[in-house]
Amino acid sequence: MSSANPLVRERDVDFLLHEVHDVMRLCQLPAFAHHDRETFDLFLESAARLARERLFPLFKAMDEAPAVLEGGRVRVHPAMDELWGHLCELGILSAGRPEAVGGAELPSAIATMGYLYLMAGNGAAVGYALLTSGAAHLIESFGDETLRRVFMERMYAGEWTGTMALTEPQAGSSLGDLTTRATPVAGREGVYRIQGSKIFISGGDHDFRENVVHLVLARRLGDSPGTRGISLFVVPRRRPVGGDLEASELEDNDVATSQLVHKIGWRGLPSLGLSFGEVDDCLGWLLGQPGHGLSYMFQMMNEARLLVGANAVATASAAFHESLAYARERLQGRPLGARGGAPTPIVAHADVRRMLLRQKAIVEGGISLLIETAAQADLAAASPVAEERERARLLLDLLTPVTKTFAAERGFESTSLALQIHGGYGYSSEYLPELWLREQRLNSIHEGTTGIQSLDLLGRKVVASGGRPLLLLREEIDADVAACRALAADDELADALVVESDRMIDLTQRLGARGLAGEVTAMLAHSVDYLTLVANLIIGWQWLRIANAARRGLVAGKGGDDEFLRGKIEAARYWIRTELADNARLARLCADAEPSFVEIPDGGF
Amino acid sequence: MSSANPLVRERDVDFLLHEVHDVMRLCQLPAFAHHDRETFDLFLESAARLARERLFPLFKAMDEAPAVLEGGRVRVHPAMDELWGHLCELGILSAGRPEAVGGAELPSAIATMGYLYLMAGNGAAVGYALLTSGAAHLIESFGDETLRRVFMERMYAGEWTGTMALTEPQAGSSLGDLTTRATPVAGREGVYRIQGSKIFISGGDHDFRENVVHLVLARRLGDSPGTRGISLFVVPRRRPVGGDLEASELEDNDVATSQLVHKIGWRGLPSLGLSFGEVDDCLGWLLGQPGHGLSYMFQMMNEARLLVGANAVATASAAFHESLAYARERLQGRPLGARGGAPTPIVAHADVRRMLLRQKAIVEGGISLLIETAAQADLAAASPVAEERERARLLLDLLTPVTKTFAAERGFESTSLALQIHGGYGYSSEYLPELWLREQRLNSIHEGTTGIQSLDLLGRKVVASGGRPLLLLREEIDADVAACRALAADDELADALVVESDRMIDLTQRLGARGLAGEVTAMLAHSVDYLTLVANLIIGWQWLRIANAARRGLVAGKGGDDEFLRGKIEAARYWIRTELADNARLARLCADAEPSFVEIPDGGF
Repeated sequence: MSSANPLVRERDVDFLLHEVHDVMRLCQLPAFAHHDRETFDLFLESAARLARERLFPLFKAMDEAPAVLEGGRVRVHPAMDELWGHLCELGILSAGRPEAVGGAELPSAIATMGYLYLMAGNGAAVGYALLTSGAAHLIESFGDETLRRVFMERMYAGEWTGTMALTEPQAGSSLGDLTTRATPVAGREGVYRIQGSKIFISGGDHDFRENVVHLVLARRLGDSPGTRGISLFVVPRRRPVGGDLEASELEDNDVATSQLVHKIGWRGLPSLGLSFGEVDDCLGWLLGQPGHGLSYMFQMMNEARLLVGANAVATASAAFHESLAYARERLQGRPLGARGGAPTPIVAHADVRRMLLRQKAIVEGGISLLIETAAQADLAAASPVAEERERARLLLDLLTPVTKTFAAERGFESTSLALQIHGGYGYSSEYLPELWLREQRLNSIHEGTTGIQSLDLLGRKVVASGGRPLLLLREEIDADVAACRALAADDELADALVVESDRMIDLTQRLGARGLAGEVTAMLAHSVDYLTLVANLIIGWQWLRIANAARRGLVAGKGGDDEFLRGKIEAARYWIRTELADNARLARLCADAEPSFVEIPDGGF
Repeated sequence: MSSANPLVRERDVDFLLHEVHDVMRLCQLPAFAHHDRETFDLFLESAARLARERLFPLFKAMDEAPAVLEGGRVRVHPAMDELWGHLCELGILSAGRPEAVGGAELPSAIATMGYLYLMAGNGAAVGYALLTSGAAHLIESFGDETLRRVFMERMYAGEWTGTMALTEPQAGSSLGDLTTRATPVAGREGVYRIQGSKIFISGGDHDFRENVVHLVLARRLGDSPGTRGISLFVVPRRRPVGGDLEASELEDNDVATSQLVHKIGWRGLPSLGLSFGEVDDCLGWLLGQPGHGLSYMFQMMNEARLLVGANAVATASAAFHESLAYARERLQGRPLGARGGAPTPIVAHADVRRMLLRQKAIVEGGISLLIETAAQADLAAASPVAEERERARLLLDLLTPVTKTFAAERGFESTSLALQIHGGYGYSSEYLPELWLREQRLNSIHEGTTGIQSLDLLGRKVVASGGRPLLLLREEIDADVAACRALAADDELADALVVESDRMIDLTQRLGARGLAGEVTAMLAHSVDYLTLVANLIIGWQWLRIANAARRGLVAGKGGDDEFLRGKIEAARYWIRTELADNARLARLCADAEPSFVEIPDGGF
């Protein structure tokens, strides 16, 4: 392990935030007007320091001593108590929330970079924060004053933690099939008895704080089947005595841990089977309107999808920097064509350089996309202009499944390359890449699998909205193409973006027409290929922007930055020539609705 | 875990051996004339039974209780003693060797399928057999009568096991840098004192048999640096007393275990750091001529590369069948466009079908390539016609790095898809896919990394031999294209093979010309892309052959086989449309010598 691993490099983040994305423009929005570069830097420096000095040193230890289930209660790594204190102190739980609820009201673009640093240090530990913050935000958005006071405030303060309790054993990704039910308690408006089983509930129990508040999807007695009958409930593990929200003492709320899933990573954050109402004494408080549970939950799911993307990029980043340091230190072999002489650091070998540049392209392209997506979230939430909010919302909706899935799928590949660079040592648990690889493997499963994200992108975000978000995307790309043309240096990159944007629009129109003709299966069969194509384009666009910024830096001739800036341009070239170049093939598969796997008889597999 | 997992399906193997590859033609070679279908079937049935009934039931247990190092000795899983007995009884150690050394003289095509079944059950346990057999074969090939009697016979009999001891901590893949040295023992011809350190020695110690015989690469005092000064030595952990090979008692030979690598898979087969001659009392016997060590070792390395390929295919196969059974059982969601109704088995979902067909294409394409490569090894070794031997040798040399690397790289991807199909359950160690994924990750590292295999393919096997092996490959492909044309049913597939064969030949000529012009870096920079391109083509060719055989079966109208045969044709279409279609992009990267990762400054990563 390289003790000098930066996990995420400040210099890259700063360059992306300021030179590429001009994040300070967000401070022109009234909500963020109280911020300046200094408050942003201070927060990010604190996050980076916490990641390097506290979280990362416990990363491996928390994997080696996973949470255990004892006597029905979960015991997590003893260090979580202290780490949680540090995370709360940093203010990550309410970093993006307004001052009215105790938050710093940082733009999501900044808060997400804070998460990026933290998650690169220790994804499992930070997972509790993501969940607590997202669950509290649901109560903030949809709860009444009492629920906010009793639950939300304690959650943002870090006294209690939160979860999202969606998945059921029999339903999996098919939420409409959930069977957890809510029976009204006579005479107590908004209070229900909850009964049912949930699985894969991350952070569903622990012993470092006194209470866990579950945000539970359930169906009220008599409500319709399918997704429309689903409501959202606040279900604490410990409730105020008698279910009286004014009571100050707590008592058990009949929420039992039925199972501890033995995950292959994220071992500091237990994933549980939970059983609600085994003795029919589990109280839940309805959040917002009945029947809106799933649409409310999407607020938390979308936030979580962005942060799963951040986790995936963070994990790939830590692994990338580990392998880069290793490649610079490890002496082995000679450069091609050389005879004799001393062994060279393996960074000199072409294929090692390929694996490094590929990782760099994925990691920094991923960071850039995180900033892009988060900044759209900021505009969607905080722009005073309705039209701009709507535009940003459409882009945010489009970018969310792409950000999550690109980071998860390519991040896994990237992390595997970091392991490969370590050779035989990479296959040993004495080195870290294998642990990052195990961590990374979850990201294409939780918060909606790659298959689910792809259906969401093509079916809901693109076709169901008439393709409008893609036209907005096209406008954004065109602006950066024009900026590239103005620099008159990287026409090859601009040309590729134009060709591939056209291809994407053309393909989408063909798929949309297929959908209108009722050929839904043919339209959606290659949705994963479609998402890959869109992601290749969007990352190509991000790299074009980055190359533009680097080119501006080179033109300005800032001393000493030369290698840093040229590295960005080579990474842009690599991505566009190597991955964006795959879009012709992907578009053909989608356009042809290549039918082999649809047509193969079930008995033919 | 599905208890009914076949691991590898007999029906597929039989179809590939007999309908696709007409393996019985090998019995026309004198060496195999004593065999018939019955002896082949008997061997394969026994291997499959052993895999399912003995090896697989201990697969997870051996992962959970890995080998440990205690008091300088390695203790492996207690079940290895019995498993080893079963493996020896099957005759796998000398399955391919002649009767003169106690073997069954099975064709490699059959023996490799035996390994395929066995490794699908438990790769680590079978690893000892692969190593023992390969090491004994080295002594058979290059040792004198005494070395054969003392070492080889006991190894083929399974009394002693063997290893290959190449890698050193400071040298890694760069074998020319090895520093283990051999000092002649005065007055004892061929006997040397060995001193040095090796690492990643699989099966380097254990406690289920009394001795381990290391085949050690070392440099004799005064021999030249680099690979030409390397010789091969037989170095047992326990030696006949006094180093007198006629002595019947054994004593320690100063071989110490310095380290146990904590591997993330293959945990039943310890990977060790070994220290030879710590007290300068380690005797080694020179094998064959001095200075030929590396070229001798290539015999074992090439055998091992084929079997690493077999392991990778076997692992992917077991995972594929697990996920197929899961997809047929697991109820979740509805087919696209359906409203309401009962949940469907997830095998009905298009994207699950894509993941299944992709696995099938990799697994069965991989099995077919294993047979192809092994059959060329049979012809190279046993054809009575010198010209045919030479032709087969060239094809074998070409196919070996492709077989190993295709299986390792695509096998990893395939195994990861098996995990993905299991959703959240796949991320738990209560299910097997994560274990197969960990096992699989080694295969692109050991026996030459993907980078090394790619340099070997393009630099040595293709360019250095003037491209002749590719012309032979082209002839083979053309024959199957002609057979396809004669069936007049799958012209699309034949057309694609012709176009892509042309592309491969054309690209190779351009790369060769670059090499002749001294532009070695530009020629080799994309060698991994080149290998991927060649592998896509070769697997496309295998699928064309398989489709031809399936088409013949459909024409013959064998009742009940319809779905089985149509499945083959759809898998062929899938591979050729999806992966072979990527070769245009790969060829462009190679032909352009796309320079981003070569040109990026070291400080730019």
